[in-house]
Amino acid sequence: MTQATIDLNSDMGEAFGPWKIGDDVDGDIMPLISSANIATGFHAGDPNIMNRSVMLAREHGIGIGAHPGFRDLVGFGRRDLNESAEGLVNDIVYQLGALREFARRHGVRLQHVKPHGALYMRAARDETLSRRLVQTLRELEPTLLLYCMESSITCQVARELGQPVVREFYADRDYDASGSIVFTRYTQALDPQQVADKVLRACTEGKVRTVEGRDIAIGFDSVCIHSDTPGALALVRATRARLEGEGIRIAPPQLF
Amino acid sequence: MTQATIDLNSDMGEAFGPWKIGDDVDGDIMPLISSANIATGFHAGDPNIMNRSVMLAREHGIGIGAHPGFRDLVGFGRRDLNESAEGLVNDIVYQLGALREFARRHGVRLQHVKPHGALYMRAARDETLSRRLVQTLRELEPTLLLYCMESSITCQVARELGQPVVREFYADRDYDASGSIVFTRYTQALDPQQVADKVLRACTEGKVRTVEGRDIAIGFDSVCIHSDTPGALALVRATRARLEGEGIRIAPPQLF
Amino acid sequence: MTQATIDLNSDMGEAFGPWKIGDDVDGDIMPLISSANIATGFHAGDPNIMNRSVMLAREHGIGIGAHPGFRDLVGFGRRDLNESAEGLVNDIVYQLGALREFARRHGVRLQHVKPHGALYMRAARDETLSRRLVQTLRELEPTLLLYCMESSITCQVARELGQPVVREFYADRDYDASGSIVFTRYTQALDPQQVADKVLRACTEGKVRTVEGRDIAIGFDSVCIHSDTPGALALVRATRARLEGEGIRIAPPQLF
Amino acid sequence: MTQATIDLNSDMGEAFGPWKIGDDVDGDIMPLISSANIATGFHAGDPNIMNRSVMLAREHGIGIGAHPGFRDLVGFGRRDLNESAEGLVNDIVYQLGALREFARRHGVRLQHVKPHGALYMRAARDETLSRRLVQTLRELEPTLLLYCMESSITCQVARELGQPVVREFYADRDYDASGSIVFTRYTQALDPQQVADKVLRACTEGKVRTVEGRDIAIGFDSVCIHSDTPGALALVRATRARLEGEGIRIAPPQLF
Repeated sequence: MTQATIDLNSDMGEAFGPWKIGDDVDGDIMPLISSANIATGFHAGDPNIMNRSVMLAREHGIGIGAHPGFRDLVGFGRRDLNESAEGLVNDIVYQLGALREFARRHGVRLQHVKPHGALYMRAARDETLSRRLVQTLRELEPTLLLYCMESSITCQVARELGQPVVREFYADRDYDASGSIVFTRYTQALDPQQVADKVLRACTEGKVRTVEGRDIAIGFDSVCIHSDTPGALALVRATRARLEGEGIRIAPPQLF
Repeated sequence: MTQATIDLNSDMGEAFGPWKIGDDVDGDIMPLISSANIATGFHAGDPNIMNRSVMLAREHGIGIGAHPGFRDLVGFGRRDLNESAEGLVNDIVYQLGALREFARRHGVRLQHVKPHGALYMRAARDETLSRRLVQTLRELEPTLLLYCMESSITCQVARELGQPVVREFYADRDYDASGSIVFTRYTQALDPQQVADKVLRACTEGKVRTVEGRDIAIGFDSVCIHSDTPGALALVRATRARLEGEGIRIAPPQLF
Repeated sequence: MTQATIDLNSDMGEAFGPWKIGDDVDGDIMPLISSANIATGFHAGDPNIMNRSVMLAREHGIGIGAHPGFRDLVGFGRRDLNESAEGLVNDIVYQLGALREFARRHGVRLQHVKPHGALYMRAARDETLSRRLVQTLRELEPTLLLYCMESSITCQVARELGQPVVREFYADRDYDASGSIVFTRYTQALDPQQVADKVLRACTEGKVRTVEGRDIAIGFDSVCIHSDTPGALALVRATRARLEGEGIRIAPPQLF
Repeated sequence: MTQATIDLNSDMGEAFGPWKIGDDVDGDIMPLISSANIATGFHAGDPNIMNRSVMLAREHGIGIGAHPGFRDLVGFGRRDLNESAEGLVNDIVYQLGALREFARRHGVRLQHVKPHGALYMRAARDETLSRRLVQTLRELEPTLLLYCMESSITCQVARELGQPVVREFYADRDYDASGSIVFTRYTQALDPQQVADKVLRACTEGKVRTVEGRDIAIGFDSVCIHSDTPGALALVRATRARLEGEGIRIAPPQLF
């Protein structure tokens, strides 16, 4: 039942210009994860940061993914924006290409794409957006992994159209009965051991306790810990140690 | 002495959101030119416009180029900005990739890159920037054409490092004795026949009259007419007609 | 029954940097209206344009209003954005002050504030936002006129708290049975005489035909014609001529 | 010879959206200074942060100043931008008004204006800009204090035209023989006691040691410590303690 290998992903490169977010620990987290979602400039990140993040990910042999968001810097891409699916997919194509060029520069290829924040949540429930996004990925790169939740429409549509998915488990977010995470604009510090326990249980039993207080089954290929959650480094360390202590290997999904 | 074939390039996709610039005649100009410099979002353009511009260029079989600028929307990339060569090249890589992804989506490849406005002029005189830009292009795509002026440091460095260049002649700008154009933030309407005459003379005699009133030799592979120059469409029409009337074919440089 | 005097307002200063919107006819429209809603930089407009717009409005003796929008240039403030009432009111305070400073510079005072586009429509149905906005206006300037629709929650709250309102009639938008306009991101060209007829009827009979095809009563103090509606100048001219032909005077509301 | 009272100013509110800069110690520094330069959104700051900063400054009875910068978020206003004096002053008017509206909301008045970063340095050497800025301040508010360096053209022009100035001494920047600070985009951590010593000497002897190694006379009314200098809080604490220990009172200039 236990997964022998799991991906551990985190959002990287979410600074902007001279500003830092969260604990500013990208350099410490990068060696501990297996996949990096690199911000692509619309909700966070800038070309200098993207360049450094790609180099850092390459140095550690980590899977590189584009993390496109709403065009909303001040809101960090966490505010839903009423734009058409067509417009949003154009925004994603733009950001995906921007990161791909840095990957090209450094001789690595993109592993995945993962929409950020409110855009991820929008796609999760909006079939028109998910369908247009997946169709566009089919055209752009039919082997590019799409990170999403198993309960999402995005996941359904990707499977239907044949785009490979990586289903995520959110270590630092609460779940509701629908199997979706409870979206929040701000997160509190969490206890590293509780987070590690939650992830281990999900990996070994395939279950998570919801905010309503009951267990639901959860299917996933990757564990996500947000780097801007307060104390993120401790969460990543505790989670990785717990998984490895139980013999579960951390590796990017393309190496499974 | 006369050139048998010449490229005719113009800046395309320089609207932004709901706003238009110049005479808003991209659709009319596109069939008349052979290469399009498509704005990549930092000084003008947005993902929706980039997507449409790439489709339109493809439809007309026109060479597609990235037209990256300073990150300065309100100033349309015409204000010099004191940023390091490293930072500027990261900005260019970002924008180049963004456009390349739209090309990838529509099954075409990029033909060229041409920095916009004040960034083009900066590179023309700044060896550090030109060198870093060209070195980066060597890594990214050693066959990507770099548009520049023959008199520029950019051109010298590209030749030295082996990146192929397309030297431009500016139909709608004045020249000074150095062989450089006189940069301006605003342009006046010009007489189409005078512009056509100037281009024809440059093509047949290899000369242009400078603002100081004397002739200088000018070497070039492409004629540029800016689409935001007032009356741009008439300038392009008159120039194309004059050149074709003299038996000079208009074609993108990769087809020479 | 007929109104003896009516305000005629239009959105002014909605260019951005070098870009123009609609027919770019601010200079022609300004002398024909009595109140100008001047864009304040978040959805359109920039400091240079704001400065010129205030000078132009002053020259024609027109009431000057701030026209704050969502922080969304590329979407022109027409995309709803999921931000808290507190955050949105801070955005409005910022923009209101920015315009007020140009008014201060040119020795005129602000007459009114009118939220733009999707922000106006949000306030119209969102009591929390309307209440916080009106409370803030009470603190900032209890005599500043607030433009809104009679059917809106904004209007109700302003009356309850004592902030003076100017109720608008939209010459170039359709109405539904609720008395609200049908919001649209794009507008078609309209027939000037039909628009003038619609406005005259509203002024003399207090009625408008809805999209559902029946008449509803409409109370208003000002007629709005958007300057970015195609053919806006003809609409304003025809409307003003029709009203004045019927003896209805056009004047800003503070002069009623 | 010793100054009995001195102003201590610091840049406040330079976060942006979810991002922090420097040590993020505004709340700790605010009670220790007498004047706050509040970022106004073009190089840093946003309406939520401006609102909080004004409230915090009011709570501590601190002089409130606008800190307008170049429109350059990613560069934090530290990159010189080739814009006309007219355009730059319009940018300053816009930002000044935005902050003034928050002051109006909270029942306080603006004490001063201080251009930020590269804009401050530009004005210091550019008479056209300084003259236009000061003329505009004369129109807007002839009693508004203008912070500048004694050696700057800004200071000369303000004195000539009658705008009151507050001359600054930079505790955390190096001086050159011209009496100007050596502008830098990045600053290193400094020793608090050395900084305090330097300030005390400047207050008591009116002298500072330049990078060239000789002493120059320096006239000033206010000491500036940047809040984004690493270890800023320790610098402010040490400086304040040293000055107060020598009987020098810290107070905003309008209370001198």
